[in-house]
Amino acid sequence: MSVIYNKVALIGLGLIASSMFWAMKRGGVAGEVTGYARSEATRDTARRIGLCDRVCDSAAEAARDADLVVLCVPVGAMAQVAQDIAPVLKPGATVTDVGSVKQSVIDAVAPHIPEGVHFVPAHPMAGTEHSGPESGFAELFDNRWCLIVPHGAEAEATTRLEQFWQALGAQTEQMDVGHHDQVCAVVSHIPHLIAYTMVGVADDLNRVSDQEVIKFSAAGFRDFTRIAASDPTMWRDVFLTNKDATLEILGRFTEELFALQRAIRTGDGDQLFDYFTRTRAVRRGIIDAGQDTAAPDFGRGGPKKA
Amino acid sequence: MSVIYNKVALIGLGLIASSMFWAMKRGGVAGEVTGYARSEATRDTARRIGLCDRVCDSAAEAARDADLVVLCVPVGAMAQVAQDIAPVLKPGATVTDVGSVKQSVIDAVAPHIPEGVHFVPAHPMAGTEHSGPESGFAELFDNRWCLIVPHGAEAEATTRLEQFWQALGAQTEQMDVGHHDQVCAVVSHIPHLIAYTMVGVADDLNRVSDQEVIKFSAAGFRDFTRIAASDPTMWRDVFLTNKDATLEILGRFTEELFALQRAIRTGDGDQLFDYFTRTRAVRRGIIDAGQDTAAPDFGRGGPKKA
Repeated sequence: MSVIYNKVALIGLGLIASSMFWAMKRGGVAGEVTGYARSEATRDTARRIGLCDRVCDSAAEAARDADLVVLCVPVGAMAQVAQDIAPVLKPGATVTDVGSVKQSVIDAVAPHIPEGVHFVPAHPMAGTEHSGPESGFAELFDNRWCLIVPHGAEAEATTRLEQFWQALGAQTEQMDVGHHDQVCAVVSHIPHLIAYTMVGVADDLNRVSDQEVIKFSAAGFRDFTRIAASDPTMWRDVFLTNKDATLEILGRFTEELFALQRAIRTGDGDQLFDYFTRTRAVRRGIIDAGQDTAAPDFGRGGPKKA
Repeated sequence: MSVIYNKVALIGLGLIASSMFWAMKRGGVAGEVTGYARSEATRDTARRIGLCDRVCDSAAEAARDADLVVLCVPVGAMAQVAQDIAPVLKPGATVTDVGSVKQSVIDAVAPHIPEGVHFVPAHPMAGTEHSGPESGFAELFDNRWCLIVPHGAEAEATTRLEQFWQALGAQTEQMDVGHHDQVCAVVSHIPHLIAYTMVGVADDLNRVSDQEVIKFSAAGFRDFTRIAASDPTMWRDVFLTNKDATLEILGRFTEELFALQRAIRTGDGDQLFDYFTRTRAVRRGIIDAGQDTAAPDFGRGGPKKA
């Protein structure tokens, strides 16, 4: 592998940034990697575990002279960070981000980007339920997708960012900003909201205790708890900033749910059976596309048979 | 281990029955195990793979002389099977089932149980998204819970069934029938309904293609697709027969979802943040109770760090 950006700055040092660092080291993708986190505790942890070649005490210090600056903070913090680093950005540098929402990030960041600096929004579609500087690992992006939303950026800067993500293990695809926000509402934002809601309901019942919910969770419930354990700040910002798309998909979801509820109430077994049958094909597609394991129960335990 | 029932009959040969067979063999829990499935193809498969010591061509033939008869058919098929085996049941034998709903199974089965035969309903809370006679494996019940709903059965027969399930690897707990159906609505039935709905919505959108949903599913959606690939007949029957409890929990779910929807619409970030924070504790409880892995992403890929 060869160096794609000589100097990379990671602003924000959570799951995504720390995984990017280890993946950059694995691939020899960057010369020097600097890092900054707002919290002093996070910076101390980063220094202790060797996360980043140099941990800086301000975003501007980390971004100075960088060829690539990656904004890895929650979507709601993007504007402030963009403003902080704007004065030190090097001509010809590229600024990118890893936010789960793109229109809102563009609105927040683009006005601060100086003439001669490229801004190429991106969204690596990978994560786990763990957060913070110690949660990262080099393999996080392997075989996952990173969506690139050029939004008018120069082709050369866009291509280079795609090569960078591919060197971190990801596949890349360019997407229009509006379509991005809608796709993500479907495959990510609403699933998270629903999982949070289901876990919240179970936690809040009087007649079924938390201990019972926990003990008997293997019957289905526990699949929801993983994504409902994701970072609360990040997800708050996602819903505040992708409001239109999430409300639209949520409307579709409740409409379908009410149709199934009615089928339960009226005892319409055929409707339930037909609905439950067609959803099997989607699972098969995901396994065939290499995006999940065919082992039963996510391969959590038992034999790894397909 | 020692034999707990000399002769066991499995009526229905899907995931649960086939896993019970392999677990009985592993533990030396039964003398002879007979089996019956309505479909000739399933019976042929069972004979081919050595599932059951003897595969019979009728439920009555399989149940004749059995010390334990386990009804492993969808809830909606329980009444017919109970009627078919009733004439051959041996005095002192125990009939049990593995249905996900208990009041409805009791209503369907109890009237057919002859004097002198014990009926002890049970529900092993384990499963995978795979179905059929070839999907079973001996470890399915290890460290999972099997709920026993004695419903007036003799203590001795109940205790023996608990020992049987413990010998298959499960932990057992006795529960009242009404409470069982409510607990299962929360930890299993409504999570499945919601997962089916989310997958159905994603499959049904015009502006986001199925291929996009599949490609980008690692962002959260794919966690839903596992349980939405479960057996459609079984789940149809669950909702038709646990109507009251599922409609009640569904009402609670939509109420909470509307509250979060309103928070998104009005931009109430504090409410979203608070909600997303408290759900983390439930996940931690499930991991501490040994009911799921702490490895990121269910340990699907990447390093197995906690």
